[in-house]
Amino acid sequence: MTDADALSQDEQARATLRAIFDAAVASAAPGPAVLRHLPGKPKGRCVVVGAGKASAAMAAAVDAAWPDVDLGGVVVTRHGHAVDAGRIEIREAAHPVPDQSSVEAARRILDAVKGLSPEDLVLVLISGGGSSLMVAPADGLTLADKQAVNAALLRSGATIGEMNTVRKHLSAIKGGRLAYAAYPARVITLVISDVPGDDPGAIASGPTVPDISKSKDALDILDRYGMVVPRAVRDHLLKTEDKTPESPPPDVRIVAAPGAALAAAAARARDFGVMPLVLGDALEGEAREMAIVLFGIARSVCQHGLPVAAPAVLLSGGEGTVTIGSKGAGAGGRNTEFLLSLAIAARGHPRIWAIAGDSDGIDGTEDAAGAIVTPTTLARGAAAALSARDFLERHDSYTFFKGIGDLVKTGPTLTNVNDIRAILIT
Amino acid sequence: MTDADALSQDEQARATLRAIFDAAVASAAPGPAVLRHLPGKPKGRCVVVGAGKASAAMAAAVDAAWPDVDLGGVVVTRHGHAVDAGRIEIREAAHPVPDQSSVEAARRILDAVKGLSPEDLVLVLISGGGSSLMVAPADGLTLADKQAVNAALLRSGATIGEMNTVRKHLSAIKGGRLAYAAYPARVITLVISDVPGDDPGAIASGPTVPDISKSKDALDILDRYGMVVPRAVRDHLLKTEDKTPESPPPDVRIVAAPGAALAAAAARARDFGVMPLVLGDALEGEAREMAIVLFGIARSVCQHGLPVAAPAVLLSGGEGTVTIGSKGAGAGGRNTEFLLSLAIAARGHPRIWAIAGDSDGIDGTEDAAGAIVTPTTLARGAAAALSARDFLERHDSYTFFKGIGDLVKTGPTLTNVNDIRAILIT
Repeated sequence: MTDADALSQDEQARATLRAIFDAAVASAAPGPAVLRHLPGKPKGRCVVVGAGKASAAMAAAVDAAWPDVDLGGVVVTRHGHAVDAGRIEIREAAHPVPDQSSVEAARRILDAVKGLSPEDLVLVLISGGGSSLMVAPADGLTLADKQAVNAALLRSGATIGEMNTVRKHLSAIKGGRLAYAAYPARVITLVISDVPGDDPGAIASGPTVPDISKSKDALDILDRYGMVVPRAVRDHLLKTEDKTPESPPPDVRIVAAPGAALAAAAARARDFGVMPLVLGDALEGEAREMAIVLFGIARSVCQHGLPVAAPAVLLSGGEGTVTIGSKGAGAGGRNTEFLLSLAIAARGHPRIWAIAGDSDGIDGTEDAAGAIVTPTTLARGAAAALSARDFLERHDSYTFFKGIGDLVKTGPTLTNVNDIRAILIT
Repeated sequence: MTDADALSQDEQARATLRAIFDAAVASAAPGPAVLRHLPGKPKGRCVVVGAGKASAAMAAAVDAAWPDVDLGGVVVTRHGHAVDAGRIEIREAAHPVPDQSSVEAARRILDAVKGLSPEDLVLVLISGGGSSLMVAPADGLTLADKQAVNAALLRSGATIGEMNTVRKHLSAIKGGRLAYAAYPARVITLVISDVPGDDPGAIASGPTVPDISKSKDALDILDRYGMVVPRAVRDHLLKTEDKTPESPPPDVRIVAAPGAALAAAAARARDFGVMPLVLGDALEGEAREMAIVLFGIARSVCQHGLPVAAPAVLLSGGEGTVTIGSKGAGAGGRNTEFLLSLAIAARGHPRIWAIAGDSDGIDGTEDAAGAIVTPTTLARGAAAALSARDFLERHDSYTFFKGIGDLVKTGPTLTNVNDIRAILIT
């Protein structure tokens, strides 16, 4: 192979990976995703409410799509994620730790859906982060009470499911309570999912999905883990009646999700004659170790044509973790950490390229979504006096990829279906 | 589902996994594997030599198969892995750090193949660990010289390929030199592989596979990493002539390997109506994190039927690592550590079972090959006052699975194709 061929192969591999990544992100773009799933226009008013990192952008799409509908509402998003949504008020609150602005937002949302008629439509726009952005302590409880319970839950060893059961029983908006408040209006929930399995009851704690657990279940969980909680919390659970208010079955539509983004990525890969294999939409684990494991799968593709024959691309979603040791951390997020570890594991393997990035356009706290790995990543690093191992050791992966010019920048995408990883085996 | 159904499902899943694991190990049984690949009997003598953890058992099979051949030889295995091989002398040496017995064994092996005719056959039986069990310092070098270079290599940051290039040039037996010594006899090498890609030049440093690298390449590597080595080593590399002695092309037959073992496991899975997906025969990474990543794939099988539709089994080989923290370690190997982490990640997922074990029958230093995980692993642990998280935290996974009676014991199998992992999704 000549140098020119190699260059052309490199350019082609990079273009393929970037197209695959962009297709995944595009499938989750909030505007088009919402428009694909909008119901018919209501006879009466349309009240748009919601919470989440992508929810302001979702609201803007609804406002633009229905200029002739009597429309209003209030949506809360994360600080910095607000966009102009015309007739719909956009508020900002804190994420991931809720603050008083989260409480105020929830109060405004509950007020907005009151007093409607059956001919009115409540559109609830939910996306990741909604749980902390929209907080309504149940009657008699304060934000401080909820925060105390949350801290105790995180220490307790309770499962995510158990934690959510307790949380829902202490909320005036979660576990279906927003839908009860909106009754008798018709309620349709549009969701951009970032949770494994896309369970509507789990995303933002399911404000429009009735919770079937009882107050006693929440009390049992507190007791099971010996949790110490404020007196008011226990009193609230003891006095609550478990009657489910009247409301029709929930109408929840997943408009974008990690699995759908990977399906879009897979379709784009086929356009390039590359066989996609979706490993999973919710992979977890330490990012640098995930890279070593996935490299093992890529190597098997090279050597044995298993689990898929090359040319192929291994696609995965979900979020790895980055555990910072005692030495502290440089600049970098989950995706560049994953990629730097992958490059080290691959040791310049001539048939392996990769891209990984956060679909929201922000890997960690940096200005890049992620980066690209090629067979020459380590060599180009070494030529620039950048030791991949040293940069990985101090969690400074962003700086490494910046140094060799291989960051992937999309700008904020205002959506979030978690990370997108693609390992291309030529 | 009734309790009786659940019990029956549990029994069936366990039996399926055990049959899959046993099929993988059986495919690598040294006796049958060698017999499947034995050449025709020689007209002249047969000299059997070799090194590795499985090589004594391989030799015993040859001795038994050819009672009417003029046969002898010497094979070195790891302490404790010797078996009676009739006319073939079995020696033992140290692993993984070579000692004087490794040097003595190599000398005996080189002596045994000298002075043969073209009608004679040298059968070389190689398996994992052979590199440290058979050590012949090149003329003018000592074991201490080689050990000093090896220590410097491990500190240097050189790649495995670079390390092997240097090692081969300091050896009188590796890199094809055993084959040169045996010329003009016919040489056939039978290999049980435990290395990714089954590269015959990599397994036991390829004693019968001519090394194409030059002495200058080895010197360049020493210089590239600024390695300080004994004077005699540098002198040896400077004075060596790179002429390749006469010998026919190598005839190397892989008689058992991780990939073939997984293929056998996959075939067995199909017998049970379970779709196998081989993820790779050489997965690496921290065992507990590998478990979290592979659970993510298993969850995708459950939720989306991707990368394969259930009922399915995810098969993988290779070796995870267990990094012991400052708190020290209890009892357990890579496989039980993997499984305990998998059980925690799966949180009692009702559709996920798993088995993992070392094909040599010894996970770490324990008397079990591995263990089995079921949907009730955590619950049965809790009922026995065994906290899975605590046991994982202190690397005491063997004790956990012993406590709930779910260890898998095979006894020593006298073969080694690395670990076998199977995650069953019903």
